[in-house]
Amino acid sequence: MSRTRTRGRRPGSPDTRALILDAARERFAAGGFAGTTVRAVAAHAGVDPALVHHYFGSKDELFVASLALPIDPRAVLAERLAALPAEAGSESPGARLLQAILSVWDDPALQAGLVAAVRRFLEPGGETLVRAGFVPVVLVPLGELLGVQEPAVRMPLVATQVFGLLIGRYLVALEPVASMPAEEVVATFAPVLDRCLLGELPSRSAT
Amino acid sequence: MSRTRTRGRRPGSPDTRALILDAARERFAAGGFAGTTVRAVAAHAGVDPALVHHYFGSKDELFVASLALPIDPRAVLAERLAALPAEAGSESPGARLLQAILSVWDDPALQAGLVAAVRRFLEPGGETLVRAGFVPVVLVPLGELLGVQEPAVRMPLVATQVFGLLIGRYLVALEPVASMPAEEVVATFAPVLDRCLLGELPSRSAT
Repeated sequence: MSRTRTRGRRPGSPDTRALILDAARERFAAGGFAGTTVRAVAAHAGVDPALVHHYFGSKDELFVASLALPIDPRAVLAERLAALPAEAGSESPGARLLQAILSVWDDPALQAGLVAAVRRFLEPGGETLVRAGFVPVVLVPLGELLGVQEPAVRMPLVATQVFGLLIGRYLVALEPVASMPAEEVVATFAPVLDRCLLGELPSRSAT
Repeated sequence: MSRTRTRGRRPGSPDTRALILDAARERFAAGGFAGTTVRAVAAHAGVDPALVHHYFGSKDELFVASLALPIDPRAVLAERLAALPAEAGSESPGARLLQAILSVWDDPALQAGLVAAVRRFLEPGGETLVRAGFVPVVLVPLGELLGVQEPAVRMPLVATQVFGLLIGRYLVALEPVASMPAEEVVATFAPVLDRCLLGELPSRSAT
């Protein structure tokens, strides 16, 4: 830790927000979402917990802010899902999910920031952010929004497929995935995602 | 480039092989597989091209060696595919592919090296190694071995799905994928991969 910290608690100051975000990133990466309290982040930043609540509201908001995404995926994906024409993939949650995700990722103003976020997730330590943060805070609620059964099991399954697709299309620029128009990506991969979202799951090993 | 190089050509020496591999990694990452000649790698290493052929045989072999994988994926996957019981996934190329891949990745002696290789692929510059090297040298021939139609289109599609699965299971340790027994991973994802390997592809945009 190269940053110097005061021992006492700091009052609000222009860089207090950034200081709290740095502390949140370190604590969430080390302890995951459930294992990190707002109080621990405040202590790590050397500020009063009330100041964390003042700047960020809940622990969920603090976590999403600490990911430094160019958008709040919860709000934007909910909005894009709601904006899809009623007939679009009405029987395919995979198609609806992909259309919403691609409408964000294909936006040139957002793409570089999203790619940077995926790279952070893939750095050593980033796996805790995915596993213990992104999944419960973003992914499972998104599954509930899509009306998926057993979202805590199915959304991580579908996440591996979407994650692979995003890496292939945007990070690696793998053809033919990189140059396909969005509607062709949806046509190709929606049935694949639906298999994870709607299909039979292998029965769990008997006790 | 921190390594010093002689101007003239070097004779073979104990570190010549390592020197050639370093040069190959730099050239392949910069120019891709097709854009890199054995002659260019030799020049970059300051050795005679004959020495490159002496140590590595063909350009294919040189490329695979430069990936620094714990195994040669071409040889090992071909061997694992051949070793599968005849009844295993006889109608599912996705099941056969996954069984072969998981038998390699679940091997504790190989896993750390494979994870390191995936991380290198994901570093900036690594995308050229995937796109212009791993796909034509490893992936498309693997599709031919599986008897897949249009392997140059279908194998990259399936690669995004396998890549996402490997990242979820081994790099991020995302549940439930991380703790599933291999046969449950196969049962869950083989139908997903078969959709990419056997299913209808969206018709390409008319001219």
